[in-house]
Amino acid sequence: MPKQQFSAVEGAILAPRGFRASGVFCDIKRLGTGKGSEKGQKRDLALVVSEVPASVAGLFTTNQVCAAPVKVCIERVKRGGARAIVINSGNANACTGRQGYRDALEMVDFTERALNLPKGSALVGSTGRIGVPMPMDNVRAGIIEAAALLDQTPESAANAAEAIMTSDTRAKQIAVELKLGGRAVRIGGMCKGAGMIQPGMSATGKRPAAVPLHATMLCFLTSDAAVEQRHLQALLTDAVARSFNRITVDGDMSTNDTVLLLANGMAGNERKAMQPGKPGFAAFREALTHVCLELAKMIVRDGEGVSRFVTVRVSGARTFREADAAARAVANSALVKTSWHGGDPNWGRIIDALGYSPAAVAEDKVDIGYSAPGARKVVWSLRHGQPTKASFVELCAAVAAKEFDLHIDLNLGPASALMYAADLTEAYVDFNKGNVADPATLGG
Amino acid sequence: MPKQQFSAVEGAILAPRGFRASGVFCDIKRLGTGKGSEKGQKRDLALVVSEVPASVAGLFTTNQVCAAPVKVCIERVKRGGARAIVINSGNANACTGRQGYRDALEMVDFTERALNLPKGSALVGSTGRIGVPMPMDNVRAGIIEAAALLDQTPESAANAAEAIMTSDTRAKQIAVELKLGGRAVRIGGMCKGAGMIQPGMSATGKRPAAVPLHATMLCFLTSDAAVEQRHLQALLTDAVARSFNRITVDGDMSTNDTVLLLANGMAGNERKAMQPGKPGFAAFREALTHVCLELAKMIVRDGEGVSRFVTVRVSGARTFREADAAARAVANSALVKTSWHGGDPNWGRIIDALGYSPAAVAEDKVDIGYSAPGARKVVWSLRHGQPTKASFVELCAAVAAKEFDLHIDLNLGPASALMYAADLTEAYVDFNKGNVADPATLGG
Repeated sequence: MPKQQFSAVEGAILAPRGFRASGVFCDIKRLGTGKGSEKGQKRDLALVVSEVPASVAGLFTTNQVCAAPVKVCIERVKRGGARAIVINSGNANACTGRQGYRDALEMVDFTERALNLPKGSALVGSTGRIGVPMPMDNVRAGIIEAAALLDQTPESAANAAEAIMTSDTRAKQIAVELKLGGRAVRIGGMCKGAGMIQPGMSATGKRPAAVPLHATMLCFLTSDAAVEQRHLQALLTDAVARSFNRITVDGDMSTNDTVLLLANGMAGNERKAMQPGKPGFAAFREALTHVCLELAKMIVRDGEGVSRFVTVRVSGARTFREADAAARAVANSALVKTSWHGGDPNWGRIIDALGYSPAAVAEDKVDIGYSAPGARKVVWSLRHGQPTKASFVELCAAVAAKEFDLHIDLNLGPASALMYAADLTEAYVDFNKGNVADPATLGG
Repeated sequence: MPKQQFSAVEGAILAPRGFRASGVFCDIKRLGTGKGSEKGQKRDLALVVSEVPASVAGLFTTNQVCAAPVKVCIERVKRGGARAIVINSGNANACTGRQGYRDALEMVDFTERALNLPKGSALVGSTGRIGVPMPMDNVRAGIIEAAALLDQTPESAANAAEAIMTSDTRAKQIAVELKLGGRAVRIGGMCKGAGMIQPGMSATGKRPAAVPLHATMLCFLTSDAAVEQRHLQALLTDAVARSFNRITVDGDMSTNDTVLLLANGMAGNERKAMQPGKPGFAAFREALTHVCLELAKMIVRDGEGVSRFVTVRVSGARTFREADAAARAVANSALVKTSWHGGDPNWGRIIDALGYSPAAVAEDKVDIGYSAPGARKVVWSLRHGQPTKASFVELCAAVAAKEFDLHIDLNLGPASALMYAADLTEAYVDFNKGNVADPATLGG
């Protein structure tokens, strides 16, 4: 493996030069606990702002029912540049009709005016319950407060990361630095996940015919790299294909999934050196993919009720589509996921899921085994469809870990695919059934 | 609606003339609690026998990984007649390789010899854990004991129905009688389900290209009707398409799903009058479909951990395939199923699942509502994508019932489909995670 050309740095979305952020509580859920950032209330509105115009790239849910903020972003990202992103949790602004669309537009307009930015330069992201009108009075008050609190401190980044959380139990942040032509370039990111997680995003929100696609997950990335818009979009599309589009918590694809990347050029690297084929381009792609992948894994590990993190590695499929379908069938099978929760190395449920997947599977060719995350030593439970001599105790030990890799070789062809998946627990069910007597407990 | 031409009768699979059955305990799971039908042990091996040669029809899982008994039955049903079925629970004889196939063949051979039947006249069904070799000593002892106990009493039918259960909490039996050309003709049935339930069966075990397909469920049907083999197969294929192939508990299609129907002609109806276009044919089809549908619903109601039974009725789709895909996406969504468990009328999760299904969906056309089972009065929560004035309390009341219908109108075309579905509960997860320290708790 080539040496990594980047290293971890502090500061998350504010590690790159020229960005400011804030996160406030404005009672988006209308809990009636008052306005303003009272101590102890989870923040629910964030701003991320670049000092100078930035190139922008975006990936969006391919769900046919897509939220108003997604529609607004798809239109605006196509045009190119951006300066700011306003994000709220607690309300998805999805299935809210024409008023919802007007509200999403007002959120960007109001943000632009509050920050004295050019018209069309703000973007918007929302997550939370579907079908509830946006509490626009609270949103406007939140934007005004957040605009006044914009700062470059690690605390500001952390406040923004908290404000985008819904059922997440912890904030998800990362930043890396790499060298491009002698210049230090940084990429920062924050995201949220937890439930309704099996993203299948594309740049247009439409499902590309050739790409098999399937949370609300939101991810906001910043960089001080100088990159042309079209190259930035290609880089982000590639990174998301290897990260967020390869995770599943519960198999439900959200109406709101969004990844946005602003690159403001303040690192001063040579923009022309950032194109396909140039060494800097590959180095940036590697770093960006790392940022997306680490954030994506944080989403799975912090998924609702999740107790185990399993990387499903399918190889030997005839085509990538079949490898992908096989990996998703296993990663989303209720019976496989409950057996992971129980620490039961039940290969019968795995081969059953493979057998009903759209992938071609020959029972007498299938290998199934386990390893520590990324390790080479695999304990095989099944070889060519036959149970191995590995003991039940040995197999139980392999799946007792909080994180492990599941290896499946179909032995039918050259294609492979992987999925980052989670178990299914009583805690997931308990959380998502909520309590109708207390609507504040009801999730998105 | 035309008047039903059949009525319920007692006796289950032994209601039709000329059948005998038995069910015994032979310790298929090798719990070591001894052999023979000890008092208090759940029976695990059943025999069903016709006094005379019967026409036979069968439907089988379309899972590419299919169990040895399924392979044996597919070959034998093609040939036509049958006299007996041997069925065990506790072991699926799936993914057991060549030895498993030899064991399935030995089960039918041994049954034929024990009953002094012609070679090739017995069929076999198995359900239980995948990948465990069949305990053939126990099986042989069980067949010998079961053969000695064959009888026509309701108790014998009940013993057989108990012997095929796995995680079922209760036996599932039914029988009806209808008149064909002045003769009383009966149809009886028993089945088992509980988990790994989303059958998609065909007569050949191959997926028909034009039919969208997706437990272990086993169903054994008897009739004293005289029906030609090819007509019997057509009748059963049609009945299963309207019943077992429209249920889901957890979305997992088993390696063992099997429906077998023996029709021995002892009612003395005119065989030639039993063909498409004749009134008797339609009457028999109606009665057979009723038997299959009632048994299929029993499987969903008694699914692992199930607390609510929901009939998902999709209409207004462009094609049947899209209606079916939309109904399955909703019926299998973890978030929709947990909201049913919580009694939360969360239409956001429903429209989200519709949006990521392969069916064409236009957000601003979708209607979503609830009714009592089969009732005409629907409480709508969404009309043309807009929340109605129905209050949260009113909607909660509609989904608080143990059984209700979910109505979804896509308003895009003429096609409709329905699915009989269940909620997802903590009890399902707890049951299926099992306890690796006590392998007897581990399910199929």
